[in-house]
Amino acid sequence: MISVDTAIKIVADTVEPLPSRTVPFENTLGFCLAQDVQSDIDMPPFDRSAMDGYAIVAEDTTAAPLELAVIEDIAAGHMPTKKVLHGQASKIMTGAAVPEGADAVVKFEETEDISNNRVKILKSVRKGSNISRRGEDMQAGQTVLHKGMPIRPQEIGILAMVGKSRVEVFSAPTVGIISTGDELVDVGCKPSTAQIRNSNGYSLSAQARRLKAEVEILGIVKDTKEEISDIMRRGLQKDILILSGGVSMGEYDLVGDVMKDFNTKIYFEKVALRPGKPVIFGRKDKTFIFALPGNPVASFVTFELFIYPAIRKMMGFSDIHRTMLKASLETEILVKRKRREYRPASLRMHNNACLVSPVEWHGSADLLATTRANCLLIVREDAEKLALGQLVDVIPLD
Amino acid sequence: MISVDTAIKIVADTVEPLPSRTVPFENTLGFCLAQDVQSDIDMPPFDRSAMDGYAIVAEDTTAAPLELAVIEDIAAGHMPTKKVLHGQASKIMTGAAVPEGADAVVKFEETEDISNNRVKILKSVRKGSNISRRGEDMQAGQTVLHKGMPIRPQEIGILAMVGKSRVEVFSAPTVGIISTGDELVDVGCKPSTAQIRNSNGYSLSAQARRLKAEVEILGIVKDTKEEISDIMRRGLQKDILILSGGVSMGEYDLVGDVMKDFNTKIYFEKVALRPGKPVIFGRKDKTFIFALPGNPVASFVTFELFIYPAIRKMMGFSDIHRTMLKASLETEILVKRKRREYRPASLRMHNNACLVSPVEWHGSADLLATTRANCLLIVREDAEKLALGQLVDVIPLD
Repeated sequence: MISVDTAIKIVADTVEPLPSRTVPFENTLGFCLAQDVQSDIDMPPFDRSAMDGYAIVAEDTTAAPLELAVIEDIAAGHMPTKKVLHGQASKIMTGAAVPEGADAVVKFEETEDISNNRVKILKSVRKGSNISRRGEDMQAGQTVLHKGMPIRPQEIGILAMVGKSRVEVFSAPTVGIISTGDELVDVGCKPSTAQIRNSNGYSLSAQARRLKAEVEILGIVKDTKEEISDIMRRGLQKDILILSGGVSMGEYDLVGDVMKDFNTKIYFEKVALRPGKPVIFGRKDKTFIFALPGNPVASFVTFELFIYPAIRKMMGFSDIHRTMLKASLETEILVKRKRREYRPASLRMHNNACLVSPVEWHGSADLLATTRANCLLIVREDAEKLALGQLVDVIPLD
Repeated sequence: MISVDTAIKIVADTVEPLPSRTVPFENTLGFCLAQDVQSDIDMPPFDRSAMDGYAIVAEDTTAAPLELAVIEDIAAGHMPTKKVLHGQASKIMTGAAVPEGADAVVKFEETEDISNNRVKILKSVRKGSNISRRGEDMQAGQTVLHKGMPIRPQEIGILAMVGKSRVEVFSAPTVGIISTGDELVDVGCKPSTAQIRNSNGYSLSAQARRLKAEVEILGIVKDTKEEISDIMRRGLQKDILILSGGVSMGEYDLVGDVMKDFNTKIYFEKVALRPGKPVIFGRKDKTFIFALPGNPVASFVTFELFIYPAIRKMMGFSDIHRTMLKASLETEILVKRKRREYRPASLRMHNNACLVSPVEWHGSADLLATTRANCLLIVREDAEKLALGQLVDVIPLD
């Protein structure tokens, strides 16, 4: 049995980024850039007015208040045609190019219109005032976005700005999900006393879709080698195949056996973890297979610990793990077993500190507890009692 | 000119949740529940074994080690058929129903198989050990999810578990986006010296899509009343219409005029804010109109401040604003103007405390600065100098 940290490291070291593909830039939100992106323009493209006002020669305004002759009216999107000389001003809009000769802009609020072609400047301004210099924000040829960056709305804006209408991103994996267990029925059925509905298939699907993976729920199979083999063959077309259930040491736990029958390379089969000890990670040809425990909270937690980094690494991100924070415990915790535990918990901020308390939780079947949680609280292997106010590691989930 | 806080309050008070609709539960990730959801089953549905092992009478094991007769083999998904009497045991799998007569489960690791029908129990166990009681996690009739809850993967799992295959959620708004400005060209074009590419249309679209809104980019229009009117008419079919540009006090800033020509009810036109002072919020029939400044960072920030809560409220969430945290400043900040400022900044955790520092930023046109940021740092109206280590408010963006 290996530690959680070792198991996570094995996953992170084994999985590789998927090939990249070139797609319309508007469709890349949430993906990871697979190329550096250069600007093809200077921004601002010219010395630009940062205000609505008058472009003038700063030196003239030392004598303010004074009147200047208005020689032109420059709108955004149009280039100035006249050079501003001493004693002159050009009316200018925010974003328009500052005309030759002018070296500052006085904003409207500090002027008074005298007539159509005369303006009174009320205050003196310094050279360069209210002008953004050409190339100040970005320059033609400059690398503005880097391979490995996550694409958020602001990166979409930059791609638009530099004309990168098609861009190379890493692909998201295809994921197949199989739920195993004689006791499972689908959501539309009313379970008999011995049955429960398949919830893992859907929660795992949502966890993977949240990361942008392309998910197919392959369905429910009975605990027979034949049924598991048949569906696993279909699942091997995916980049990632997730099974839940059938991995304990019971006699009906056949998923591991079937994986071995398929000559799957097995990296680990058990992790010192609660909930979720029996977790199998293997590879068959190009497909990474994760066989998770059937209990809903165990399936939920093991996805976040092991499959989350696998998907993120496949998608090209450098930052592949869920963020871990330190939070101060709002209640003491007694530790029963010397095994790494992940408990559903509630994280909140008070001033600039994170505070955490576990939510009521009856164990690995109690998925309802996780609806009251927004993080997982980590109890380390060497912990005996966690005291009020002690700093613990938490993984925010939302 | 009103304060940011007043403006946000006006938006939050004016906008109402959209009608709900009933959809397949798998499609509800990221939406808000518009109904309470009850369980139709007990979970566990019976007294259930939490381990693979033997169901026994706890009292028998006080004499451990001892041998018991194995009378049945109970798999998950199958109901036990025999009552366990003193001196007897039934082999049982995790998740299976505990047979009548048995009141504890001894896990395999604490037993030794003697023969096909005899087992040696190595340790004594207490009554109730390794049994999850019927209805312990949820009971038939119990409200398990509440109206107003955000739907995450764990809530999807609960919906599956209780058989809620179709569920009522609040709708996401339809959003139309218009970019105004003579200087704008589309992403595929090479701008001439006086032009820039339309980036706001795409970054705003990504900001809205991130919240699950259904976005249509309506395109670019010139600074003429006719063009703005024509496209605005099309935009009035949406729940929310966003315009960027054309809202300053310049002569070519016609968006406000056109809104008034349409008899739009105007709630505010200017907010004491940097970047983003000229922001118009209005309503025409069912459509809420937000006219944002054209500078990319101003458009980005004003979306997050004003449109984010509008979309969240329309989608039925109770928690409609972006989370605000306190963080400790890693560098001092000199404040120039007495106006509320939102600066692109970088937030990081150290132990359990949040630390923040502003990123290099040249002003409201410098969108590239926001690609180095993961939060907005708030400089309050009354701030003069912000000292190293001082607590400031930040809005995390990712």
